[in-house]
Amino acid sequence: MIKTPYLLFLGDAPDQLAVKVAQGIKDWRPENALGQYRMEGCKADLKLPDMDLAQAREAGAKTLVIGVANRGGLISAAWKKVLVTALEEGFDLASGLHNLLRDEPDLVAVAKATGRSLHDVRVPSVKYPIANGVKRRGKRVLAVGTDCSVGKMYTGLAMDAEMRRRGLKSTFRSTGQTGILITGDGVPLDAVIADFMAGSVEWLTPDNDDDHWDIIEGQGSIFHVSYSGVTMALIHGGQPDALILSHEPTREHMRGLPGYALPTLEALRDTALPLARVANPACEVVGVAVNTQHLGEDEAAAYLSQVETRMGLPATDPYRFGAGKLVDALAAY
Amino acid sequence: MIKTPYLLFLGDAPDQLAVKVAQGIKDWRPENALGQYRMEGCKADLKLPDMDLAQAREAGAKTLVIGVANRGGLISAAWKKVLVTALEEGFDLASGLHNLLRDEPDLVAVAKATGRSLHDVRVPSVKYPIANGVKRRGKRVLAVGTDCSVGKMYTGLAMDAEMRRRGLKSTFRSTGQTGILITGDGVPLDAVIADFMAGSVEWLTPDNDDDHWDIIEGQGSIFHVSYSGVTMALIHGGQPDALILSHEPTREHMRGLPGYALPTLEALRDTALPLARVANPACEVVGVAVNTQHLGEDEAAAYLSQVETRMGLPATDPYRFGAGKLVDALAAY
Repeated sequence: MIKTPYLLFLGDAPDQLAVKVAQGIKDWRPENALGQYRMEGCKADLKLPDMDLAQAREAGAKTLVIGVANRGGLISAAWKKVLVTALEEGFDLASGLHNLLRDEPDLVAVAKATGRSLHDVRVPSVKYPIANGVKRRGKRVLAVGTDCSVGKMYTGLAMDAEMRRRGLKSTFRSTGQTGILITGDGVPLDAVIADFMAGSVEWLTPDNDDDHWDIIEGQGSIFHVSYSGVTMALIHGGQPDALILSHEPTREHMRGLPGYALPTLEALRDTALPLARVANPACEVVGVAVNTQHLGEDEAAAYLSQVETRMGLPATDPYRFGAGKLVDALAAY
Repeated sequence: MIKTPYLLFLGDAPDQLAVKVAQGIKDWRPENALGQYRMEGCKADLKLPDMDLAQAREAGAKTLVIGVANRGGLISAAWKKVLVTALEEGFDLASGLHNLLRDEPDLVAVAKATGRSLHDVRVPSVKYPIANGVKRRGKRVLAVGTDCSVGKMYTGLAMDAEMRRRGLKSTFRSTGQTGILITGDGVPLDAVIADFMAGSVEWLTPDNDDDHWDIIEGQGSIFHVSYSGVTMALIHGGQPDALILSHEPTREHMRGLPGYALPTLEALRDTALPLARVANPACEVVGVAVNTQHLGEDEAAAYLSQVETRMGLPATDPYRFGAGKLVDALAAY
């Protein structure tokens, strides 16, 4: 568990896109985002108070979160100086970079000397069990996509936010590095050893109150040949009571797989639901989340309306139009 | 790649069941099984020549393979003495034990000093790529099961043996520790990091002659909630042209999962085939392999005949009645 609240390190980000992890934290856990730390030449701005390390400590920040993707995959000397100083000032560090904090001997030495923690959220820190398939109490919902990167994480975060707004019980369960940095914990599922994937999802979504919903972050797609095994482990380890179908309607082929067409929403439903019912016979598909970012406002509304008619399910773009319809569907479950 | 031929270490095996890895090597790669090494108190016998280390070296053995499961998961002092001596005598060591050879400092030191190799087949030794889904030349067949441990490995090994007997081109591609020890190489799929599972299967089954069959060792079951992600990666990474359905008709519930019923062969076909066609639209189900070990001879024949009628597919127990029917189906593909 990463200590909150955070100071968000934007480094020398070349553009706004490079800080999307930090943006996610600000969007979905604004209470965790006390301020931003920008270095000389930083081209990104989250519209958060700029703070140096001392100011952030004063404001109560506990962890410096690397909220920026680095070029070349290496932690630069300029970054390193800030990170070392942060440890000395009393911050823990958290990062989703490929270049692990724990692989930097100087950071390890300073963290040890100062008693601080280094959180590399890209690699598991838990010895997960093998899944046992035992039915757990409480409810679970999982977004499954026609492809990777169609908005499953944002859909889940938007549903979680809407449920809290309504005073319903919900927990967003992160299964990827960005999600883990946003919420402060979770399972980096793509880095888990094959035999323990489903078990790690069971571990992440334990027994809970009967009226509590775990909103499990989806990964990959059962139709994406590179990552379908990860998706399968979510479907069986998660024992979802409800599935949300996620789609991006302008994608021309599966992400990274030229020549692989996206499945239809019908094919996704007809494939994912029987598989989910192996682990939870009561599972139902309850709604459709469409990422309409490449459609105009009218076009998006027309597309959603057409999907609702075709599929007989509520459909929305939860980021653009809110997750109300999806939460209505869960509340009615 | 483990150097062959082998001396098979049976240690102080308490019974015949404890040496099933060694038995598999003798059954399927007899040319690799030069002899057996039995310690005081060994209750198992492969009916191979008993050899000490010097005799086995003389006979040409290159690797001492630990062909016995150890009690308590530890390498005992008595075993250790033999293993150290073997390294000093010029043998490599190969093992599928949970207790890794590389975690024993004395074995590591002696191997280093003598220039010998320690093969822990339970853990990957290769940095696998992420699957790219690109169509590969040559043909591939995969056994998919209604459950784990229904005879998929033996089915594949029997098909491979029959194909070689007929002068057809085939390679058994091991995906588990026993298979790797039998054939000398492969991918320990259950120990691969999630993101690289399908890529490791692509790596294992590369481009080949148009008339060559890779016979991919199946793992788990798409219906087994603990391991279905691993099976999914085989189905998509393997791009099978042909599927064999594997079944054990007397099993009362999914292995290790009380309360989970086995699917029917029809359900397995209807689930696995559409998933396989995502990666290879030409994929077909070509036969059924039934593990009839718990049925009498007449009962087994009657069951197979009933399955053939019901499924419209050739059905056999390849271990009991030979893999001829399955190889006929591949040859006709």
